[in-house]
Amino acid sequence: MSSPSKSHGTPSSADTLSYEQAGVNYDLIDPLKVTAQRAAAATASHLTAHGFAEVAASRGESAYVVDVGPFYMASIVECLGSKALVADEMARLTGKSYYDGIAQDTIAMAINDLITVGATPLVVQAYWAAGGSDWFGDAQRAQALVAGWKKACDTCAVAWGGGETPALAGIVEEGRIDLAASCTGLINPKERLSVGDKLGAGDAIVLLASSGIHANGLSLARKLVERLPDGYLTEVQPGLTYGDALLAPTVLYSPVTEALYKAGVRPHYCANITGHGWRKLLRHPSELTYRIHTVPPVTPVLKFMQQHAKQDDREAYSTLNMGAGFAIFVKQEDAQRTVDVAKACGIDAIVAGQVQAGPKQLVIEPLNITFGNDDLQLR
Amino acid sequence: MSSPSKSHGTPSSADTLSYEQAGVNYDLIDPLKVTAQRAAAATASHLTAHGFAEVAASRGESAYVVDVGPFYMASIVECLGSKALVADEMARLTGKSYYDGIAQDTIAMAINDLITVGATPLVVQAYWAAGGSDWFGDAQRAQALVAGWKKACDTCAVAWGGGETPALAGIVEEGRIDLAASCTGLINPKERLSVGDKLGAGDAIVLLASSGIHANGLSLARKLVERLPDGYLTEVQPGLTYGDALLAPTVLYSPVTEALYKAGVRPHYCANITGHGWRKLLRHPSELTYRIHTVPPVTPVLKFMQQHAKQDDREAYSTLNMGAGFAIFVKQEDAQRTVDVAKACGIDAIVAGQVQAGPKQLVIEPLNITFGNDDLQLR
Repeated sequence: MSSPSKSHGTPSSADTLSYEQAGVNYDLIDPLKVTAQRAAAATASHLTAHGFAEVAASRGESAYVVDVGPFYMASIVECLGSKALVADEMARLTGKSYYDGIAQDTIAMAINDLITVGATPLVVQAYWAAGGSDWFGDAQRAQALVAGWKKACDTCAVAWGGGETPALAGIVEEGRIDLAASCTGLINPKERLSVGDKLGAGDAIVLLASSGIHANGLSLARKLVERLPDGYLTEVQPGLTYGDALLAPTVLYSPVTEALYKAGVRPHYCANITGHGWRKLLRHPSELTYRIHTVPPVTPVLKFMQQHAKQDDREAYSTLNMGAGFAIFVKQEDAQRTVDVAKACGIDAIVAGQVQAGPKQLVIEPLNITFGNDDLQLR
Repeated sequence: MSSPSKSHGTPSSADTLSYEQAGVNYDLIDPLKVTAQRAAAATASHLTAHGFAEVAASRGESAYVVDVGPFYMASIVECLGSKALVADEMARLTGKSYYDGIAQDTIAMAINDLITVGATPLVVQAYWAAGGSDWFGDAQRAQALVAGWKKACDTCAVAWGGGETPALAGIVEEGRIDLAASCTGLINPKERLSVGDKLGAGDAIVLLASSGIHANGLSLARKLVERLPDGYLTEVQPGLTYGDALLAPTVLYSPVTEALYKAGVRPHYCANITGHGWRKLLRHPSELTYRIHTVPPVTPVLKFMQQHAKQDDREAYSTLNMGAGFAIFVKQEDAQRTVDVAKACGIDAIVAGQVQAGPKQLVIEPLNITFGNDDLQLR
């Protein structure tokens, strides 16, 4: 189970809006997830009968990896979440269709997770479950979804294999759509596997820029609308509404990981910064300290959200990506090259810090924040 | 896109209940699907950059296949559909949880499609999108879902890789869950690929028994409840309610296809009999006649549905599986062995007919029904 599993324990002041208050209660999901994880782990032995074996270290990582001999095979299914609700509301307010961006968001959820283990994404399958056949009757919206899906596949050089377009009246709400993507890829050559065994003290932490909120924290973002004078049309900065800013599509990071391979850079580990914000930097189970000396610029919509939700930096960085969408841990001597490769792909990047020997913690020095191991328990 | 794409044109009498009347309007989904299929097909060239190539014949088949060199890789995502609504209603009426069976149904939707192309299923990912965190708060139901999912993975000897358990309030209806499964497998050795190129006149048609309605035709089944004196508790046969009969889990057919491989039988083609009922036997684009001389026994719940929906045989066989859940096309001399292998797996089977040279049609001789090419357009 790769979705977030534990809410954070940061104390909040009276009018601070936290993630739990925004309606997601992980305490109810957690017991199921633990049972499911145990049951899932017990099925690994089936692969032996086929002459294959799981990469056990991938359990708890963002994608599941199987050793199939000449290479590793990685697979994943990921959900968009509630971002489509923002698109629907903005479409009502502006008459525009935002589903091309929503398509990219959905694919990004799967692709950006799959690449963390070193996989080259090869095939994406679409899961578009609508509240009724008539969802597909809005041709402009449906065509935007198709066009955006195709464009994201083009950006990531993956084949769109097919998918499902069920009409699920009675399960999916009328007028809504539940979007997900499954993705399969190969780790080839096998040396590209990055499940963290190479991660160690001295590694550099490179952070790739996000485009905005991406597709995590939307429950909070939607809740916040109630506090804004003009709702989604409130300006985040002159000429940019809150709704439009939220709907900036998630950055697709696979062009960077593929370019890094071609440039001879082998990441020791990667973390997709999604739910739990920067606490995702603590994802790997190793006992290591992650020391951040430079933070990237915070995208305007996230700064705006932090301000209106009255979150302190600790709460904001523990929930939102705060300008960093993806972390790559590389050898110190590869750090600048990693930044250069990302920039050549059109994605801003910085060498943000270093992995050090020490207790498991994330120290964000410029903000005087420390997250300990207790702040993230994903496994 | 692997979901059904065209409704049938069978004329209906006044109180006959057809699939369209049960609420699924494929006319609205179709234009999107055509555009999506074209866009998807255009992405195949991306595989070349990775040194791979799609198996073009798998476009339009039940799973998408990529040639990755030493073997083929197949992948799919499939939705359960609306069967969970029956489980929810029956849980309300009886206090029992049916989600162990529902889990098997969901996995069967993916596995039974994946194996048609000759793949050995290796990894299943779970997609469980609930209407809110509290869905997972019903421990009995949640544990049944986990236990059933694991058991189905055990039956199919696949590894449960992980998955997503999002809480999607505002998208999925409160108290409901949208269930899907993605599955990845390998066709290994490559000779196991069955996309129909070997299918030809003289091949035998072996039909494997279904357990009931499986997971297709549930919209019709639910609509029918309104006509029944005791609703879901109406008896289909003494001691078996309509609801319980509907909820018999879908048969998992991968043990049969794997056992066939071990027995040296190489299917020329397979068809998973889901939406469109027996018209799925016309799935392959070849110009061939499929002549059925023996039909399997119709499971009681399907006989009951046909009777209460006042469908003639033509309409029933064009919508429901009518006792046959999966078709395997093999060399004539392999026909009896195929039946024997299926029976050894605990699944009843019959040699039902033969593929012949002739116009593309399905002739069900015992029932005097002919379906022509116009009755099924899935591509």
